[in-house]
Amino acid sequence: MAVETEYIHLSTRGHADVHDITGQVAQKLEGLKKIKDGIVTINVCGSTGALTTCEYESGLVEDIRDIFNKLIPPGQYQHDQAWGDGNGHSHLRASIVGPSLTLPFNNSCLILGTWQQIIFIDFDNRSRDRKLVLQFIGE
Amino acid sequence: MAVETEYIHLSTRGHADVHDITGQVAQKLEGLKKIKDGIVTINVCGSTGALTTCEYESGLVEDIRDIFNKLIPPGQYQHDQAWGDGNGHSHLRASIVGPSLTLPFNNSCLILGTWQQIIFIDFDNRSRDRKLVLQFIGE
Amino acid sequence: MAVETEYIHLSTRGHADVHDITGQVAQKLEGLKKIKDGIVTINVCGSTGALTTCEYESGLVEDIRDIFNKLIPPGQYQHDQAWGDGNGHSHLRASIVGPSLTLPFNNSCLILGTWQQIIFIDFDNRSRDRKLVLQFIGE
Repeated sequence: MAVETEYIHLSTRGHADVHDITGQVAQKLEGLKKIKDGIVTINVCGSTGALTTCEYESGLVEDIRDIFNKLIPPGQYQHDQAWGDGNGHSHLRASIVGPSLTLPFNNSCLILGTWQQIIFIDFDNRSRDRKLVLQFIGE
Repeated sequence: MAVETEYIHLSTRGHADVHDITGQVAQKLEGLKKIKDGIVTINVCGSTGALTTCEYESGLVEDIRDIFNKLIPPGQYQHDQAWGDGNGHSHLRASIVGPSLTLPFNNSCLILGTWQQIIFIDFDNRSRDRKLVLQFIGE
Repeated sequence: MAVETEYIHLSTRGHADVHDITGQVAQKLEGLKKIKDGIVTINVCGSTGALTTCEYESGLVEDIRDIFNKLIPPGQYQHDQAWGDGNGHSHLRASIVGPSLTLPFNNSCLILGTWQQIIFIDFDNRSRDRKLVLQFIGE
């Protein structure tokens, strides 16, 4: 059993910008020295991004943007009045979806559905350079 | 320390069909050969199902169906226009609740509240045969 | 590799009461005997509380209360008609945000963003004494 830490760096545009990171996670998994079976916990360093899975296709990526604009629209939040950065809605969306995703793997392969991709959603209201932490634990 | 992988198979009806899987997870945990203390990560293979906990009783199961019909109703989504399968709302709901749940256990017993059950919600718009992966890690 | 279990006890007021527990989690991590690198899974025992991260500042704490009052308001739910405790909305909110959060750490330090705190949200409609379980796994 061992722990191995890897990082993924992303340039994002914000406003519910959806990135499919399945390939990058799989590549890090295949490159591990000590671990073939276990779990990976993927976390974003920051409070306006979130991790989950979806069927990554252009229609659904638009739907994700639309549903969050409907449920938690940009606008006047207490957070904005304190800081003036206008991203109160970004914080709320990210906290509800969550900053962390844990997935299983066996024989160095992620266990996912056929139409299921790992996505990072950047909810901030501007471009960002993002760092994701991948903590692999297993044997 | 070890990793042990188990599976649960479910037949579901869709439309926010809520299944209490606490007993099945506990049974798999009790049957493990190497692990008594650790965590289990439960994941659905597929992008229209989700895992969380709730007090599993018939009133709340109806409330779960109602709140998602209100917040993310079935209807016209970009995903449906591309694929014609009419389950855009299922995907959005599943991505927001999340496909993964991690829970602790000690002495082969899950640590949960008295009125807290592990639930799988099938948000798809049809019957499905579902596979859940249980990745146990511990000692 | 090892597993170590710790607990945090909180007195909460309910109604989307947000607690920053980052300091307490960090303190438990620093006090571990066997583990410096790994993950911690934090879980609430109970079905009306939830865990996530956010930028913990007073404006956003109010925004969290407001957005849940808007999206899942207190009111008449099937759960309330069965039990008469009036907290159907608390259950729904908690199930959607989720009862579990998993975070990575290296060299006994949590890996978080600068403005990212670990929060427990008590969605119940009354004061509670809460127990959170911290399951640390690593080496």
